[in-house]
Amino acid sequence: MTNSSSDRPGEFELIAKLFAPLSAEAAGAYGLTDDAATIQPPPGCELVVTADLLTAGVHFRADDPPKMIAKKSLRVNLSDLAAKGAVPAGYLLSLAMPRDWTLPWMQSFADGLREDQNAFSVALFGGDTTSTSGPLTIAITAFGFAPAGRMIRRNGARPGDLVFVSGTIGDAGAGLAALKDEIANLSASEREVLVSRYQVPSPRLALGQALRGIATASLDVSDGLLADLGHIAETSGVRLTIDADRIPLSLAFKAAGESVLSAVTAGDDYEIAFTTPAARRDEIPQIAERAGTPVTEIGRVEAGKGIALLNSSGHEIPVSKKGYRHF
Amino acid sequence: MTNSSSDRPGEFELIAKLFAPLSAEAAGAYGLTDDAATIQPPPGCELVVTADLLTAGVHFRADDPPKMIAKKSLRVNLSDLAAKGAVPAGYLLSLAMPRDWTLPWMQSFADGLREDQNAFSVALFGGDTTSTSGPLTIAITAFGFAPAGRMIRRNGARPGDLVFVSGTIGDAGAGLAALKDEIANLSASEREVLVSRYQVPSPRLALGQALRGIATASLDVSDGLLADLGHIAETSGVRLTIDADRIPLSLAFKAAGESVLSAVTAGDDYEIAFTTPAARRDEIPQIAERAGTPVTEIGRVEAGKGIALLNSSGHEIPVSKKGYRHF
Repeated sequence: MTNSSSDRPGEFELIAKLFAPLSAEAAGAYGLTDDAATIQPPPGCELVVTADLLTAGVHFRADDPPKMIAKKSLRVNLSDLAAKGAVPAGYLLSLAMPRDWTLPWMQSFADGLREDQNAFSVALFGGDTTSTSGPLTIAITAFGFAPAGRMIRRNGARPGDLVFVSGTIGDAGAGLAALKDEIANLSASEREVLVSRYQVPSPRLALGQALRGIATASLDVSDGLLADLGHIAETSGVRLTIDADRIPLSLAFKAAGESVLSAVTAGDDYEIAFTTPAARRDEIPQIAERAGTPVTEIGRVEAGKGIALLNSSGHEIPVSKKGYRHF
Repeated sequence: MTNSSSDRPGEFELIAKLFAPLSAEAAGAYGLTDDAATIQPPPGCELVVTADLLTAGVHFRADDPPKMIAKKSLRVNLSDLAAKGAVPAGYLLSLAMPRDWTLPWMQSFADGLREDQNAFSVALFGGDTTSTSGPLTIAITAFGFAPAGRMIRRNGARPGDLVFVSGTIGDAGAGLAALKDEIANLSASEREVLVSRYQVPSPRLALGQALRGIATASLDVSDGLLADLGHIAETSGVRLTIDADRIPLSLAFKAAGESVLSAVTAGDDYEIAFTTPAARRDEIPQIAERAGTPVTEIGRVEAGKGIALLNSSGHEIPVSKKGYRHF
């Protein structure tokens, strides 16, 4: 196979060959042969929609394996649905492709989407393809369903609530650092663990759905744990205090020699951070067990505003930059 | 006002200041303070969703006025909803912004969105902002509502149906050519008419909604009239024959000295092309009148496949490239 453009399918052939099969005969997707798709929420449910745009050099590296780029693009959107307690149903994919794209790359990209569609029971409902003079850019709108009025918002945290987070924090940031050769002395398997956490996050769908009616506020950790918890603090009108020594860290992260401060300010974790009333603390371990996702209590909700990271003596640790910002 | 990055708001301030007001207190948009939005179709309706991605240098010129870039980005999506007979309700906006973006530019962009939100009764429901090393890229997912099962598809054209198109064809293509100084001898007002058709299309929403139950197939003309009608032919499994001398051309287009062939293969018209049973021909003028959009009968649906452009003697005019392709 060569990379010359004459071997590449045109826009409509590409859609018909690689993307239409991803619509998987979903009702309302019309095999990607129409201008639009139709969606009808199941009785008693409403639609939950979210959009994330990823671009090479910012959200992934242009030379990352195309399957992984596909999966990350889809999963960061599914992660938003997870944090809201929604059941994913489908997505729309818009691609701005650099002029030198190749068919093998695109086939592998579509294969990655198909694998994740099977893993998460979603289908492609539409989108757009175009060329660009810039880097590969992937815009996804994902949609799912939640019982009407029961999407888990960010604004329900109340003083007295407890703060939890799923999984471990900081792995993706350390994985990116490892990819940039900024971390030495990692074993091959430790490096692999961290890098894969950066390249292919795991949306915590079962956990999020189990938290409906339990969590008072929830979001997924994408920009950095402290920055994202700051959104809950602001939207809920409360103050969150987080205990640095309770932040869940993986063995691989510890082996990398990174600090807790780097863990809570790096992005790309795609874990769920949430609050619950203290009275429901005892339900959390069983929920975590059933969802197959560890959950750790890391702090408290208080009256006030903002977010504070405390050391073991209860003193605030100064944090100059709480998370990733695109600008 | 300077353009230094220190004068620019950060990502979250930008969203809070410029974009959150565009959510216009729409229920389910949550003032853009959450990970996701919720949407509930009105009783008896289903959601109609469509996505279009626009990038500088392809869909608009980087130095086009930001208000016009905003309006074109929104309107090409509304045009898809129009062609499907849907009533627009809202949209999600994902922006990949070049590193040198300025606050005045972004304020003007947001102003353009606000003006069109008021014009078309839609609200911003969410999205994403990121930086990019490439050109400005705008990904919009628009959604609207249509009575369940009554979205106008592309696949219902049957032999014996007639083919119609709204407005005039080719103006946007000539407008782009004028912007590139490829057309001479235009008066200032003719140039203005053509350029504005390229920069700010008019989604034919009233017409599309009036065509529910009348049109057997419909789409909006974005890649070129012949290319797009070819999609109806393919999806419906029929052949379309189009009379070149019935293609509606504006006075400004004629003044530009462009050919009918260039009109039917240029893109960016954002008119509605549709088919109806011949028995309903007499209803079309009144529908067009009520919608405030001229409609012209331009051809017929036959058994067979493909699309043919016929001259006044009924002979097929050879067309080497039926429309715009991104690759």
